[in-house]
Amino acid sequence: MIVDIKQKNKFNLQPIHQRVSVSFNYEVYFTQNLFELKNPTLAQVITADAETKPKKIFAVVDAGILKYQPELVKQLVAYTKFYAEVLAIAAEPMIISGGEAAKNDRNLVDQIQQQIEAAGLCRHSYILAIGGGAVLDLVGYAAATAHRGIRLIRVPTTVLAQNDSGVGVKNGINAFGKKNFLGTFAPPYAVINDSAFLTTLDDRDWRSGIAEAIKVALIKDASFFDFIHRHTPALVCRDMDSMQQVIYRCAQLHLEHIANGGDPFEMGSSRPLDFGHWAAHKLEHLTNYRLRHGEAVAIGIALDSTYSFLAGLLDCSDWQRILKTLSALGFTLYVPELAQKLSQLEDPDCLFRGLTEFREHLGGELTLTLLQGIGKRIEVHEVDLFLYKQAISLLQEFRVKF
Amino acid sequence: MIVDIKQKNKFNLQPIHQRVSVSFNYEVYFTQNLFELKNPTLAQVITADAETKPKKIFAVVDAGILKYQPELVKQLVAYTKFYAEVLAIAAEPMIISGGEAAKNDRNLVDQIQQQIEAAGLCRHSYILAIGGGAVLDLVGYAAATAHRGIRLIRVPTTVLAQNDSGVGVKNGINAFGKKNFLGTFAPPYAVINDSAFLTTLDDRDWRSGIAEAIKVALIKDASFFDFIHRHTPALVCRDMDSMQQVIYRCAQLHLEHIANGGDPFEMGSSRPLDFGHWAAHKLEHLTNYRLRHGEAVAIGIALDSTYSFLAGLLDCSDWQRILKTLSALGFTLYVPELAQKLSQLEDPDCLFRGLTEFREHLGGELTLTLLQGIGKRIEVHEVDLFLYKQAISLLQEFRVKF
Repeated sequence: MIVDIKQKNKFNLQPIHQRVSVSFNYEVYFTQNLFELKNPTLAQVITADAETKPKKIFAVVDAGILKYQPELVKQLVAYTKFYAEVLAIAAEPMIISGGEAAKNDRNLVDQIQQQIEAAGLCRHSYILAIGGGAVLDLVGYAAATAHRGIRLIRVPTTVLAQNDSGVGVKNGINAFGKKNFLGTFAPPYAVINDSAFLTTLDDRDWRSGIAEAIKVALIKDASFFDFIHRHTPALVCRDMDSMQQVIYRCAQLHLEHIANGGDPFEMGSSRPLDFGHWAAHKLEHLTNYRLRHGEAVAIGIALDSTYSFLAGLLDCSDWQRILKTLSALGFTLYVPELAQKLSQLEDPDCLFRGLTEFREHLGGELTLTLLQGIGKRIEVHEVDLFLYKQAISLLQEFRVKF
Repeated sequence: MIVDIKQKNKFNLQPIHQRVSVSFNYEVYFTQNLFELKNPTLAQVITADAETKPKKIFAVVDAGILKYQPELVKQLVAYTKFYAEVLAIAAEPMIISGGEAAKNDRNLVDQIQQQIEAAGLCRHSYILAIGGGAVLDLVGYAAATAHRGIRLIRVPTTVLAQNDSGVGVKNGINAFGKKNFLGTFAPPYAVINDSAFLTTLDDRDWRSGIAEAIKVALIKDASFFDFIHRHTPALVCRDMDSMQQVIYRCAQLHLEHIANGGDPFEMGSSRPLDFGHWAAHKLEHLTNYRLRHGEAVAIGIALDSTYSFLAGLLDCSDWQRILKTLSALGFTLYVPELAQKLSQLEDPDCLFRGLTEFREHLGGELTLTLLQGIGKRIEVHEVDLFLYKQAISLLQEFRVKF
């Protein structure tokens, strides 16, 4: 039916092939008490750009942190004064409320960009985003689209942001009722993980981030799963040394996948790092964000591991080990929203709608990651909803047993 | 003052270095009458993705074209029906008004994204943007940020868009009174240049795009400048064959620079393709967009060439040849806004404010491209405003002489 394009042009102009290659380099630092005057990390990151100093910096801070560290903004200002040769505050630090709700508020993006404009920031200025994953996502989107991208230094303050979302190349906000509907791929200029922030987390946020570590261990690194399994009691008792090792290895595995997985800006349909996430995203929404992201991911992992077992991919002992580890860490593996309206496939409240939404967000054909063993993933393009219903029943029973 | 970061971490965690490399590939096609049923170009572009068909497509059309081609939308719909195995219209084509004013209206971005959501487009769907540079920039921004990037096929309908803005990697809208304040770097999926659109342009738009061809010739390719110079009478008489060759070579030089210039996403401070543009951007604004972009660029080229001559960089015969070629093509090289308030450097209506705004938009130190000869550029980081005032006087005299 279709003839050669090259024959079509009466001016005989051949198509021009364009190949654009871009490399982004950034460091993920690990430190404590970033804004103590004797801590040079931030000043050093900015010194390294070898440009005329002092550089303009504009900070956006998650209000959630100020509850526990009310002096943070004052400390930050003192820090910039101490390192005045290197950096200068270009505008009052902006305080915004964190959590998923912040990502529903498009005005916040607008307000940040208004500040960027008023303060005369340029592409070589710095935006410092201090907060949990939602704040980093939101500020990252504002930074990536102002002047087509201002340098972003992320300071993640939760386990989840330090080991997963905060080290990656994405940003986004919610729109039209859909999670991350608006966003870009934009690597940060640097990431600084400060362990001191983690001491102020409540138990739920401390725990939540471990779900992403288990996820990446399950699809990529059996020995890391063993490490988490062995350190479960220490993690439950909030041992910081164990947690630092979990965060480091988890961040490393995520970074490796982004760098070497072949598709950092997700142009294909496969996304193994989203193991367990189709159900997680849907459950967050179905529970009206009663579940935090990591808690929903734990359930998503439990569900897709159980499905992998029922589909004959994963053996029984591995399956049980996964569920027991999640449970021992304190994750709940069943919520009633899993089972509601399972037969009404067109109902937006049916969990299985999450499969369609997941496919639509990634694009192309449905591609789900399942497990063939601990540390061994497999991709499938079709699922058996009957088996998924059985998996949900098993999760419910499993809950009763514990 | 600053100690080694690596010493700072009590958990002894080394920084993780991340390097993300991304490659984008796209073709720029040249065709005539894109939506004639026997023209397979568009269908072929979509067939080439090797994914399950038919693919969803959503078109956004510049209202300006419909004045001359009122049947365009009907043709497009007929085309998709004819190639129904390959593509399917996912939503009514959206008509938006074009020109720079469109880029001031952020609601348009929102409306496009609402349609994208309502039509269930995914990252592997197609958005077809048909129009001048402003429409392509605006639709490109909406497409690049929905689902973090939906495939964009640009169909530029002006000379300027076909040989410059439409083939590059940028998009954007105006905000807070600043041109392109919001935008991203996002290569298109494909570009299709259809020469038939050019026959409907008025003389000003036909001419405007030639300014960018002269610009890129002056900084990169003396023989291309000679070609334009020799073909001036033919171009004035709207000879399509000459114009196609100008567009092709201009697009090629722009694409080569983006691919091989070492900084496709403009992370540095140097941007030779913006030769003449600091004044052009400012003049567009100062004349309330009475000047079209290419017209302002012609003046910017004349100004920076004259400055190059006065600074002793460019010899007199080359300088005269540049100005005469621009004039012979019909460009006006002087407007009163060039000379207003030249001594009031802080006044927003002073042309020289454009230097600050240019620096701020690029980031880092001021970097201007000047000429050392035709086809030979040089970068400077400081300018002499007294010489610039002389250059403006010379342009005014030059106008009188012709």
